[in-house]
Amino acid sequence: MTPALADIRDAARQIAGAVVRTPSVPCNRLSRLAGCTLTLKLENLQDIGSFKQRGALVKMLSLTPGQRRAGVIAMSAGNHAQGVAFHAQRLSIPATIVMPEATPFTKVERTAEFGARVILHGEGLDQAAAFAAELARKDNLTFVHPYDDPMIVAGQGTVALELLEDAPDLDCIVVPIGGGGLISGIAIAARALKPGIEILGVQTALYPAMLQALRGNQPTSGGETIAEGIAVKSPGVLTRAIIKDLVADILLVDEPALEQAVMKLAEDAKLVVEGAGAAPLAAVLANRERFAGRKVGLIVAGGNIDSRLLGSVLMRGLVREGRVVSLRVDITDRPGSLAQVAGLIGACGGNIMEIHHQRLFCDVPAKRADIDAVVETRNADHVRELVDRLTAAGFRTRVLGTTADG
Amino acid sequence: MTPALADIRDAARQIAGAVVRTPSVPCNRLSRLAGCTLTLKLENLQDIGSFKQRGALVKMLSLTPGQRRAGVIAMSAGNHAQGVAFHAQRLSIPATIVMPEATPFTKVERTAEFGARVILHGEGLDQAAAFAAELARKDNLTFVHPYDDPMIVAGQGTVALELLEDAPDLDCIVVPIGGGGLISGIAIAARALKPGIEILGVQTALYPAMLQALRGNQPTSGGETIAEGIAVKSPGVLTRAIIKDLVADILLVDEPALEQAVMKLAEDAKLVVEGAGAAPLAAVLANRERFAGRKVGLIVAGGNIDSRLLGSVLMRGLVREGRVVSLRVDITDRPGSLAQVAGLIGACGGNIMEIHHQRLFCDVPAKRADIDAVVETRNADHVRELVDRLTAAGFRTRVLGTTADG
Repeated sequence: MTPALADIRDAARQIAGAVVRTPSVPCNRLSRLAGCTLTLKLENLQDIGSFKQRGALVKMLSLTPGQRRAGVIAMSAGNHAQGVAFHAQRLSIPATIVMPEATPFTKVERTAEFGARVILHGEGLDQAAAFAAELARKDNLTFVHPYDDPMIVAGQGTVALELLEDAPDLDCIVVPIGGGGLISGIAIAARALKPGIEILGVQTALYPAMLQALRGNQPTSGGETIAEGIAVKSPGVLTRAIIKDLVADILLVDEPALEQAVMKLAEDAKLVVEGAGAAPLAAVLANRERFAGRKVGLIVAGGNIDSRLLGSVLMRGLVREGRVVSLRVDITDRPGSLAQVAGLIGACGGNIMEIHHQRLFCDVPAKRADIDAVVETRNADHVRELVDRLTAAGFRTRVLGTTADG
Repeated sequence: MTPALADIRDAARQIAGAVVRTPSVPCNRLSRLAGCTLTLKLENLQDIGSFKQRGALVKMLSLTPGQRRAGVIAMSAGNHAQGVAFHAQRLSIPATIVMPEATPFTKVERTAEFGARVILHGEGLDQAAAFAAELARKDNLTFVHPYDDPMIVAGQGTVALELLEDAPDLDCIVVPIGGGGLISGIAIAARALKPGIEILGVQTALYPAMLQALRGNQPTSGGETIAEGIAVKSPGVLTRAIIKDLVADILLVDEPALEQAVMKLAEDAKLVVEGAGAAPLAAVLANRERFAGRKVGLIVAGGNIDSRLLGSVLMRGLVREGRVVSLRVDITDRPGSLAQVAGLIGACGGNIMEIHHQRLFCDVPAKRADIDAVVETRNADHVRELVDRLTAAGFRTRVLGTTADG
């Protein structure tokens, strides 16, 4: 059942021309930051923004004419849904996608636009999956599993063929793990082509299901993560065996590390990457000593991050780095104070983005008032300089909602 | 003086290995939107985030040992400054960069980090340029012009060699124009390799300096643009002659089109692109009939957009598309109204992002109050549905700061 290198090469031939042959690029700025030589495999530039369609297409190409006519079904609220819908439409295969009821509208729309029948059912993924399985039986549809299927694994493995063609001298490849389909295919292909290469997996600390399954630990997955693409509670059975055999280690990354990696990829690599796709960079930055001086391939698995979330990650990053700060300045409530504070901030090189002058709801004695100013600053030192300057001029000043002032 | 294809090939040989051989990628989603087949040349993935270092490197490699020892000088507040500083450091050439006094700190820092001496001088680019020229004479430094130099033109032309190697069947190439160095090099190389190919330039409507120079019109450049990389008031003399000879047309794009193109590149192509780099997509989307069905190469010239600006462009885009809306709801100021309004919005599928309940400063009669709610919505139809539902329940509702309700 486990696919071999030959199956992955077959898969590559089958999907050639129908999926984007994505580029692998260096990134000197991130390499300097990480202390190793990074090559980024840009599956975020894949059609529909993720690697998922590779496996889905291989699976659908394997169907008999009868199975094609009957149609396929998949359960997913994310990239797998879009991958199945996109290629089912291309191949004129009727597709049904089951999503949990609370799935955001954008994801429903991005799947329905490819002509798939989208059914919203169940409170969570488990109920949606059970319903999809039942519907598959009832309507005689082929179930396209998101990861636990040799065809899917073979399809995802084509990523490694391309990456090693572009960067044959890699010492290791770092891959996000949800259900394990992507890393399984990559590990089979890469270790067959280059037995000494190290394959490392990355999971979010909130959903360490594969790591726990391999160690025989109690499962604990749950919580809100920006890496929803790898927030999988039930790791694959086939994929688990492959990972046990071929993957050196699984690293866990926390939410702040994921957020920072999304921001670094946008600022330093000029790429829009979703949380799951940024997980490999997060793991490298959190384990610099492990990767020091090595040639490291990062699988940038997908770019489907909501614009609102991306905007908020960018702003939070600026706050974290002391490049945007919220100051609360206590002023005597008399004419001229606001102008004086604004003048001091400007003279110190701070750029005022927002300012609120409140007199009614402050927690200071009557006759005093607060100014809340959101200020663009250079770095944490600059923030300290601003606070000192205001304080020296007699305005008690606190930094709100950031640790920039220590 | 005008470089030929052979000079550009020479330039390519000289810079090979020292600059990133950037990929060219298709983008089906944007191609569907534009109604033509787009290939994106990703110079935003270049080191330091733009094509500018190609020409700067060619120029610096042409210096005599004595000139190298004496050093180079450039005037730029942007990508050219970083390109010169980056390669001057690599080649151990002392570099001086003159920037206008008001240059944002990030740009100063991103240049100084490569070891360049940064001098802030003059209120605007003209004064900074005059000062740089004076300093060059006084200290015997070689001036590295941002565009009006055959070496620079030859270096930027290497972009076209790579693009046509990857996508030899292009019908036309759309290129941003500031001073004209990039499009001059691209036009020389592409038209020599493929005489029938059409080369089109794009300028912002606020800075149409090259177009005006070619037509002999009065120059009118000025104003705030998000495409500051091509906000150039004085087009090159050498480049003007090349453009006159080889470029079919110059298209102008306005600020809303540039903003929308930056957003589309982030959402649909998963790329962080600065305003100038998004100008070619903006021009294609504004002139669909001109490009219908053709194979179009877009030069994504750079990705150096401030995170705060990118975040703001994304949010403004969501508002424009009716995916985020600000509602002002007049409620009777009695217990329960807030909960009722929040409940109606939720039942209608709107996701409340922010809510302000003001009783003191509203412009409605006493005993009434306003709720201002920022709500995530699906599209303009959904916004109308929300407003209708609230109105039907007796709450007068207005949409603030968007045209989503027509």
